[in-house]
Amino acid sequence: MEKKIYLDNAATTKTRPEVVEAMLPYFSQLYGNPSSVYEFASQNKKALDEARSIIAGAIGAESSEVYFTASGTEADNWALIATAEAYEGKGKHIITSKIEHHAVLHTCEYLQKKRGYEVTYIDVDENGIVKLDQLEKAIRPTTILISIMFANNEIGTIQPIKEIGAIAKKHNILFHTDAVQAFGQLDINVEDLGIDMMSASAHKLNGPKGIGFLYIKKGIKIRSFIHGGAQERGRRAGTENVPNVVGFGKAVEIAMATMEERTKKEIQLRDYLIKRVLAEVPYTRLNGHRTMRLPNNANFSFQFIEGESLLIMLDMSNICASSGSACTSGSLDPSHVLLAIGLPHEIAHGSLRLTLSAENTFEEIDYTVEKIKEIVDKLRMMSPLYEDFVRRR
Amino acid sequence: MEKKIYLDNAATTKTRPEVVEAMLPYFSQLYGNPSSVYEFASQNKKALDEARSIIAGAIGAESSEVYFTASGTEADNWALIATAEAYEGKGKHIITSKIEHHAVLHTCEYLQKKRGYEVTYIDVDENGIVKLDQLEKAIRPTTILISIMFANNEIGTIQPIKEIGAIAKKHNILFHTDAVQAFGQLDINVEDLGIDMMSASAHKLNGPKGIGFLYIKKGIKIRSFIHGGAQERGRRAGTENVPNVVGFGKAVEIAMATMEERTKKEIQLRDYLIKRVLAEVPYTRLNGHRTMRLPNNANFSFQFIEGESLLIMLDMSNICASSGSACTSGSLDPSHVLLAIGLPHEIAHGSLRLTLSAENTFEEIDYTVEKIKEIVDKLRMMSPLYEDFVRRR
Repeated sequence: MEKKIYLDNAATTKTRPEVVEAMLPYFSQLYGNPSSVYEFASQNKKALDEARSIIAGAIGAESSEVYFTASGTEADNWALIATAEAYEGKGKHIITSKIEHHAVLHTCEYLQKKRGYEVTYIDVDENGIVKLDQLEKAIRPTTILISIMFANNEIGTIQPIKEIGAIAKKHNILFHTDAVQAFGQLDINVEDLGIDMMSASAHKLNGPKGIGFLYIKKGIKIRSFIHGGAQERGRRAGTENVPNVVGFGKAVEIAMATMEERTKKEIQLRDYLIKRVLAEVPYTRLNGHRTMRLPNNANFSFQFIEGESLLIMLDMSNICASSGSACTSGSLDPSHVLLAIGLPHEIAHGSLRLTLSAENTFEEIDYTVEKIKEIVDKLRMMSPLYEDFVRRR
Repeated sequence: MEKKIYLDNAATTKTRPEVVEAMLPYFSQLYGNPSSVYEFASQNKKALDEARSIIAGAIGAESSEVYFTASGTEADNWALIATAEAYEGKGKHIITSKIEHHAVLHTCEYLQKKRGYEVTYIDVDENGIVKLDQLEKAIRPTTILISIMFANNEIGTIQPIKEIGAIAKKHNILFHTDAVQAFGQLDINVEDLGIDMMSASAHKLNGPKGIGFLYIKKGIKIRSFIHGGAQERGRRAGTENVPNVVGFGKAVEIAMATMEERTKKEIQLRDYLIKRVLAEVPYTRLNGHRTMRLPNNANFSFQFIEGESLLIMLDMSNICASSGSACTSGSLDPSHVLLAIGLPHEIAHGSLRLTLSAENTFEEIDYTVEKIKEIVDKLRMMSPLYEDFVRRR
């Protein structure tokens, strides 16, 4: 196939042309600083309001509960660090899971090492679902925050968010969820799910890179993480990125309008891909929950091979894929998510994440499956582990 | 005049069409995540490298010393908070000035109130120049950082950065400068000036909003401020905003190529504006240093009037101006900068900042001066302060 096949939509997505179109006037024409007092800038203030209202509506929140950030990562840092600072009078204990994104895990590590907080990392089962009994048992009188991701970025497992929200509420603890992978793919109503804070990012749903938001439920008294001017009602300083906010609003508007049809198509493609790979490539497992998974996520482990070699050879066939999260590409450590679901190191190393979009076709999936079969075969032929396995069989 | 006259370039600037042009391919065509391993993403990695190299070259730094952030504000927060954390073994004392941007002042306040740091705020003289003797006397064995802005955002005064760098070096203290207003307007060589860390922002020099950088001199061991993935050599997490980084690079390339001619034009316009206003509007003063000031900055105080009313009436004449920093518009407090240079409250309230670009014309300046004269006259006629003054005279 001449054309590139992009199967790494969990890493980032194409910015929709309609989104870029919506952003364009705000670069060289309506370029005023929304904090300025003149009419020229008030148009930008209005554009921010409109985007905020679209996004708030998409998650069942009020506009005043949506705060723009430069990324999902910044939103995670904000939720964790500012909550820690605001509630340290109550205690210095935070609960999270072993399969969070590094934006949460490394921030927790920072709070432990540099700020004297205690963090409990909850286990997940073999499908990647957080153990609720362990979660509830971990709660202490000093627990100030539970942060559990909505859906995992590597294996796609969707967490029982409503149950976690209920546990948090029962114990009067704040609940933050990193919904960077879920937002735009799943229906989210923060009220129904008992979510107090939620992080999201535009570039995972065909919006621009460099813009995210943190939902902060009304009444939660966390302060700013980035200090300075009075932007975002005094809670997030820095001149507003007007074009990107507008683009985020447009991307969300489209994502909401297309969600049903789009994810239906993704699920068809995903299930076809999973079925063929599991049936046609021996010694292969699907990582993550079979049904409680993101519409566009497939994650496989191929025994006896190295994921990195597989990726390189897929790339030579014009297929863009990843072994886990993009943020940790280049690291030689096996994925902490795959280890947490119980995979041994050598199997975790042979993993492949394919994350689809509704623009992919069955033809592309067929081509990809054929290439996977070919490459896995070739790599196994070269693998001492496989040779050993065959000999012993 | 039908056309809008934009005289608020210190608040934000128009993104140059060439900059937008350079960014466009990175939205919907070259949209890969630079952290990914495939060829498609490596083009983006290259684009980041190129922009970084242009920017590093512009300040006499190495590429590896430039770290992208989402704003100048984030860069300031990073420099202050991460330095505080990294060097607390040495001490918990920071020196800054009374006229810093709120991105520095509010971060200092956070470090004082929430983290137990001590901050000394150095006075400035009547022109807004930091008192160097006071600065040197403020140094303690526990001082870990001096943070003094390169040029002030309200009154345009340029600080004696080289002298401050020398003082910091002599006492073995790190020196950070917020160069958000200076970068693109003044020649900056971090090596020559003894700068250890420097913040800048693209949208002040005709680049896009939502992208800045922190220069961190090689060997300075500060950690990340935003924790998560391994982007920016493990020091600033979050998927890289590729289009904005590319746009920043382009904006800097153009700013450097045009600097001499552009600032020469700005200085002509500025000096003409200042001369006319001071000559033709009685009871008026120029705030900031007469010559050690940014090429595009003019800041006046008109006795007996309110700056807000002046702004509104200028807006009605299609003139975009500001009373001080955009970040604090809407606040009723008088500018901390104008108070620091010794203006009484009532005079600080009647201030106007006009920040030009080389695209402005003498015709626009003439029109603006006429309008200022008209409006100031009108406002004074309505002013009880002025009435009182005339009666007593």
